[in-house]
Amino acid sequence: MTSPAYDANNIFAKILKGEIPSYRVYEDEHTVAIMDVMPQAPGHTLVLPTSPSRNILDADPSALPHLITTVQKVAVAVQEAFDADGVYIAQFNEPAAGQTIFHLHFHVIPRHEGIALKPHAGKMEDGAVLAQNAKKIIELLR
Amino acid sequence: MTSPAYDANNIFAKILKGEIPSYRVYEDEHTVAIMDVMPQAPGHTLVLPTSPSRNILDADPSALPHLITTVQKVAVAVQEAFDADGVYIAQFNEPAAGQTIFHLHFHVIPRHEGIALKPHAGKMEDGAVLAQNAKKIIELLR
Repeated sequence: MTSPAYDANNIFAKILKGEIPSYRVYEDEHTVAIMDVMPQAPGHTLVLPTSPSRNILDADPSALPHLITTVQKVAVAVQEAFDADGVYIAQFNEPAAGQTIFHLHFHVIPRHEGIALKPHAGKMEDGAVLAQNAKKIIELLR
Repeated sequence: MTSPAYDANNIFAKILKGEIPSYRVYEDEHTVAIMDVMPQAPGHTLVLPTSPSRNILDADPSALPHLITTVQKVAVAVQEAFDADGVYIAQFNEPAAGQTIFHLHFHVIPRHEGIALKPHAGKMEDGAVLAQNAKKIIELLR
């Protein structure tokens, strides 16, 4: 299977260009981390490369080291920020694997013993809650 | 939470040392890819760093670029080898997030529309099936 082409008008592309607002917790030259607005658990964060690719299957290999470096930083931060027992990291490629937005991204999700994840791309979280959770992560990433 | 220390006698450490057999599909100086013996779907592959770390939370950041580079290679290969509609990539940190073996690893799992994943760490696959699936991936990684 060949991946479809990258759509430069996807939601994350617009967020990266600042055309759509987001709860941004981290950014550097190559990566941006934002709050998932439909979190599977409090603190659910997404890490994206600034460079365009649909997913990992078509990504320029040079983008990946930067991306995984930020994923690690965010994972350590959300674990501490949400006093989590563990951290789930996932990356979906194509709809059959659960991908819903077609700009490469990693999910970084704090986990607590005995608390199940909410569904992927489920219910929109309240903006004030997202802003508060973003603040906790930003403080730890500083 | 501070991560517990790395246990040098975990199963993957023994596989890396050659003390336990595995279905190895790829190796370089920094990474090894093996078949998951309890696959959630045919072609379920694990990518591990050769360097010791419990998970991504305690990993030396220098190990991660090599690891994600191999994850991408394996993802592209399993998609083609199993004519998959998508690829699911996951990495579990600590038992609360589903981690069962405490040497950092990424799961790379081919997905097909309408076919659910089997449970994580579920049923042991037949060795002949694993060997055949490994061969398909090896041919594409060459």
